Amino acid sequence: MKRTREFDQRKQVAIVGSGAWGSAIARIIGRNCQRLDTFHSTVKQWVFEETVNGRKLTDIINQDHENPKYMPGQKLPHNVVADPDICSATKDADILIFVLPHQFLNGLCEKIKASVAPGCIGISLIKGVHFDEQGMVLISDMIKEGMGGMDMSVLMGANLAPEVAAGQFCEATIGCRDETNGTLLQSLFHDPNFHVAVRKDVPGVEICGALKNVVALGAGFVDGMGLGDNTKAAIIRIGMMEMKRFIQSHYPEVEDATFFESCGVADLIVTCYGGRNRKCAEAFVKAGGKKSFDELEAELLNGQKIQGTGTAVEVVKILEAEGKLEEYPLFNSIHGIAFEGKPMESLFLDIDNMGEMVESLAG
Amino acid sequence: MKRTREFDQRKQVAIVGSGAWGSAIARIIGRNCQRLDTFHSTVKQWVFEETVNGRKLTDIINQDHENPKYMPGQKLPHNVVADPDICSATKDADILIFVLPHQFLNGLCEKIKASVAPGCIGISLIKGVHFDEQGMVLISDMIKEGMGGMDMSVLMGANLAPEVAAGQFCEATIGCRDETNGTLLQSLFHDPNFHVAVRKDVPGVEICGALKNVVALGAGFVDGMGLGDNTKAAIIRIGMMEMKRFIQSHYPEVEDATFFESCGVADLIVTCYGGRNRKCAEAFVKAGGKKSFDELEAELLNGQKIQGTGTAVEVVKILEAEGKLEEYPLFNSIHGIAFEGKPMESLFLDIDNMGEMVESLAG
Repeated sequence: MKRTREFDQRKQVAIVGSGAWGSAIARIIGRNCQRLDTFHSTVKQWVFEETVNGRKLTDIINQDHENPKYMPGQKLPHNVVADPDICSATKDADILIFVLPHQFLNGLCEKIKASVAPGCIGISLIKGVHFDEQGMVLISDMIKEGMGGMDMSVLMGANLAPEVAAGQFCEATIGCRDETNGTLLQSLFHDPNFHVAVRKDVPGVEICGALKNVVALGAGFVDGMGLGDNTKAAIIRIGMMEMKRFIQSHYPEVEDATFFESCGVADLIVTCYGGRNRKCAEAFVKAGGKKSFDELEAELLNGQKIQGTGTAVEVVKILEAEGKLEEYPLFNSIHGIAFEGKPMESLFLDIDNMGEMVESLAG
Repeated sequence: MKRTREFDQRKQVAIVGSGAWGSAIARIIGRNCQRLDTFHSTVKQWVFEETVNGRKLTDIINQDHENPKYMPGQKLPHNVVADPDICSATKDADILIFVLPHQFLNGLCEKIKASVAPGCIGISLIKGVHFDEQGMVLISDMIKEGMGGMDMSVLMGANLAPEVAAGQFCEATIGCRDETNGTLLQSLFHDPNFHVAVRKDVPGVEICGALKNVVALGAGFVDGMGLGDNTKAAIIRIGMMEMKRFIQSHYPEVEDATFFESCGVADLIVTCYGGRNRKCAEAFVKAGGKKSFDELEAELLNGQKIQGTGTAVEVVKILEAEGKLEEYPLFNSIHGIAFEGKPMESLFLDIDNMGEMVESLAG
């Protein structure tokens, strides 16, 4: 006999989004909700309705338990139920998992906020940050505001979706404001092959996921110049330090420990060795500056976009307004190379200028 | 007119060693000693005498300004003077740079300590640590003792020698005990394409250079299993945390900041993507456990040796004696796979056991 809602302590989980990352994470969450009494077994997934091979995508997911458009070949647990209606998919939800392109958020929160369960919490898996006239806005803060102040956490890490879906061992980091909620969410995501750590730090965890794409452009430039492992490791390290400096200057409460987590060093490594931003930046160098990033994206990415260039523009704009650009020689030179026709070598020359005091010490 | 020794404030530099790394660093040090008044222009280099193409190696270096055996194609500055006699090469030296295989150190300090200048300081570029019955011994401490208490610093970092010799941009870290000496040494090594940072921390900087080779075995296992970027980044990150835990438990004064330097994260990345340890570990997996590391070294490395396996054995021995092995699931499983026939999957299972408390939280 089903317990009535009122006495049912089990948390209702709803996944908002069904792309590659949403599908990969639905496999893990579906299994955990079957296994753990903390959660309702049925996991609702909001799926943007499309027609795939003449069938509705929601029908395919609910009948074949697979998302053939975004994660072909990987079965979804049967307790994951696709729903094309955002309102019914999120009705009475205790936990909302946001995993969709952030431009889809527009108006979405307005539609759902009245019908989620009281005390509903959320977690954003959306990578990137938003920039407006005031500067940088966390996606998790946009959702929090849109949902009328709901507690929001984030999950970031070295998590290429196809590898997660394939069950390859990896790690992720939850950044939370409320530790009880952080621990609850950890139990929802954690798996023997998907290790989740929790930090009481939303901005550090979330912004790492945006700034790493800027550093990856620098790594791609190094690859394009045909330089070796030493140089690339130096750019990754310096990039990590500039990420840390930028985040801690805007959010002084962020601790160094965040950068040692998967959301920090591990995600940065993955993005600088694989990833679209690195790939386009390498092609940019090889084209000798004759092709813009827009042209290269069109050529190489089959409709996908990179985030590093836009983020670089916005970050440099913020640093200029703050008069702090010279503290960020790598971000500055990456921006200059990508958009101002600066020579490739400025990547190292700008960094070296920071070392001038070293020379003067030598006398 | 040459100033007499007594009134000459310039520091006499002697490089002890002439392999690939010694030759690469001699190029930088030679240029800096020409340029900076702090140092005598002439840099002496002790070269283990060999016959190369019918000529003495010291003659080739002094006449052709190149070391054709260990760094062919890269010119040495003319002020670098090769000397086959360790005593005359180091006589009156104010700064000794140790850059040779550590087994060559035996008896070397005894020969030279009486004739170096008063107040002579040293810096070790030798990677690795030594293990005896008492446990771990820093190479820099062995030299310090051998030289009668001389102040010793170390220089470590993401520095593959051929790339440094080719002038590709990279970074290094000096770990010092005395900050004045650290700054002096920084000016000796720093170059627009060889960026040197200083930390007042010898053990942290030095031990990173040894433990990274153990982590690289784990990275190689991941490559051999055909797993992707997420998993490799996770192993690198977990390895970095175990390095940090090991070092800070033995040297509590070591600060987290050391691991953000080139000697930490950058050198670890280089070693886990390139490097001999990674290569042999990948081959070990592909051979299905049918070939030992000794056999693989002989097959793949043309007489060279890897340090990661030996270091793994010694580190596990220390952790066992301390009863702390379970705090190091990665080091433990790398050792088990390499030497005890443990299955590859134990790499992740052992790590997962540490996550058990996570499960129990979920109830």
